[in-house]
Amino acid sequence: MSIDCAARNRIAAAMQTATAPRRASAYAPSNIALSKYWGKRDQARNLPLNSSLSISLAEWGSHTEIVPAEDGADRVWLNGAALDAETPFAAKALRFADLFRAGRDAPLHIRTRNTIPTAAGLASSASGFAALTRALVSAFGLELSERDMSLIARLGSGSAARSLWHGFVRWDRGTAPDGGDSLAAPLDVHWPAFRIAIVAVDTGPKSMTSRDGMNHTVATSPLFATWPQTAEADCAAIETAVRAQDLPKLGALAEANALAMHATMLAARPALSYLKPESWAVLERLWRARAEGLQAFATMDAGANVKLIFEQTDSADVLAAFPQAEIIAPFSVQN
Amino acid sequence: MSIDCAARNRIAAAMQTATAPRRASAYAPSNIALSKYWGKRDQARNLPLNSSLSISLAEWGSHTEIVPAEDGADRVWLNGAALDAETPFAAKALRFADLFRAGRDAPLHIRTRNTIPTAAGLASSASGFAALTRALVSAFGLELSERDMSLIARLGSGSAARSLWHGFVRWDRGTAPDGGDSLAAPLDVHWPAFRIAIVAVDTGPKSMTSRDGMNHTVATSPLFATWPQTAEADCAAIETAVRAQDLPKLGALAEANALAMHATMLAARPALSYLKPESWAVLERLWRARAEGLQAFATMDAGANVKLIFEQTDSADVLAAFPQAEIIAPFSVQN
Repeated sequence: MSIDCAARNRIAAAMQTATAPRRASAYAPSNIALSKYWGKRDQARNLPLNSSLSISLAEWGSHTEIVPAEDGADRVWLNGAALDAETPFAAKALRFADLFRAGRDAPLHIRTRNTIPTAAGLASSASGFAALTRALVSAFGLELSERDMSLIARLGSGSAARSLWHGFVRWDRGTAPDGGDSLAAPLDVHWPAFRIAIVAVDTGPKSMTSRDGMNHTVATSPLFATWPQTAEADCAAIETAVRAQDLPKLGALAEANALAMHATMLAARPALSYLKPESWAVLERLWRARAEGLQAFATMDAGANVKLIFEQTDSADVLAAFPQAEIIAPFSVQN
Repeated sequence: MSIDCAARNRIAAAMQTATAPRRASAYAPSNIALSKYWGKRDQARNLPLNSSLSISLAEWGSHTEIVPAEDGADRVWLNGAALDAETPFAAKALRFADLFRAGRDAPLHIRTRNTIPTAAGLASSASGFAALTRALVSAFGLELSERDMSLIARLGSGSAARSLWHGFVRWDRGTAPDGGDSLAAPLDVHWPAFRIAIVAVDTGPKSMTSRDGMNHTVATSPLFATWPQTAEADCAAIETAVRAQDLPKLGALAEANALAMHATMLAARPALSYLKPESWAVLERLWRARAEGLQAFATMDAGANVKLIFEQTDSADVLAAFPQAEIIAPFSVQN
């Protein structure tokens, strides 16, 4: 397909001075959007309708190792298990590697290990494609910046654009038709007391991938029309609250933004509901606890789990209300 | 307040030939909207942003008796209990009677008895104001049609405009600034196999009245903007499905319309959620049962209960899936 795509062009230019692939490994953290990415303006270039802002999950992420294949065959391992080349994960990883190889004979072994607890029920595509991008760039000895890598990782999964850094990261939607300005950058905010917790309520398979859910919602939800402008305004307001380290303001905005995203799905035809009765029970409990003074707020993605944001001083109260919560300190690692 | 209001003018004109009040009684059924009324375009005249369509609940409704007060004092009874004049129900009923009395000395005793099971958790304002309108019109010997009474009942509670008739009723939003064309009319549809069931999941008090919830949503929900046009299109499509007695089409539209209404609330800031975790559990069970062939669909109002619509042939399967369901046959009574 010959569409003008900034990310593909960036790879092609860098690959002109590529070395033969060497063993390389990389790590990328997973991330949770506090201002959600929901809806594409361009499927082929994976360009979003709105900007988004996330917090990275420190040591919860993906380690990826690339090794030139001495046996001459592409192979993929996930968490130690060899995958058939036709499994979705292996096929996607190899198709992503093809963006770099672009026809050259460079068989690779790709080994990915996710450190995200299975019970957390978090998607690993963000950290997976970010780590794979870093590992491929290193394996081919390419001169590409982290901003370039964000642009490239976006082609694998939109949210991967935000997983190149620790801490708070903002992905600008951009306006260029070739996607050249649709990439992320870290915010210069160090907020050691910030916490995010995963309240797992369901580890079963999702009813629909987030990619399909997004497309179904954009295509059929009569309430989607005002989402892009709402999300863009939320993203700006959330960035301001993050820079001010104002947890109550950030929390109220992030929770409203997440609920608005789920509202667009609920109004899709037929309705799409990633949230389960148990998710609503967690939200009800949170709302009751907040009425009694707890400063914690919720955000939910295309799955049944609920994530809570709060500050370190409220950790004990969060655990008292949600004993199953897994608490992450995003600034416990250095960028 | 001197606003030009068609309903008030209609009452004033009719009251010019009013007799002294006589004992009178009336009945009106409750109703459930299949295409929801949500949002006002005019608070003072109680005018809706969109048309709506309902099914009346046969023998579930309100009986109201008006008796001239021999003791010279206004008094109100609800379900046999004498109410203090300051209780919200008594104050609203007497304020509504004042629309008719407009200064004339005519103390009244108003006795209302609701036949709606308490466990059903249904609001009785629709049947209550419709029955009160009928009883007042009869007590004062007024020459007013049922269409006139629909216009007047609307001032008490929007949904009361639809409770003047049994069966399917459509309330046209109208366009006249004085509200003179915002009233309901019955549909000439006789569908004896049609059923509606109430699945009660919560009988506790509501977090917010539907009037306040509506105003909060209109004022703060960024997704509300497209609701009025969506609701108007749904109402037309639902009327077509009712006329065709096409249950699957009607059900899918009614369920989508109700979920869209709840989606506008969920996106309000702060969020408004009348649905409880147990409501979502009923919906999940319904969706699973439907995937296995059950032809039943849900609608939900400003409360936690779920209502199901289906045809008589599916009654046994509905009861098997929802043993607590209370089934109503709307065409078991004659208009």
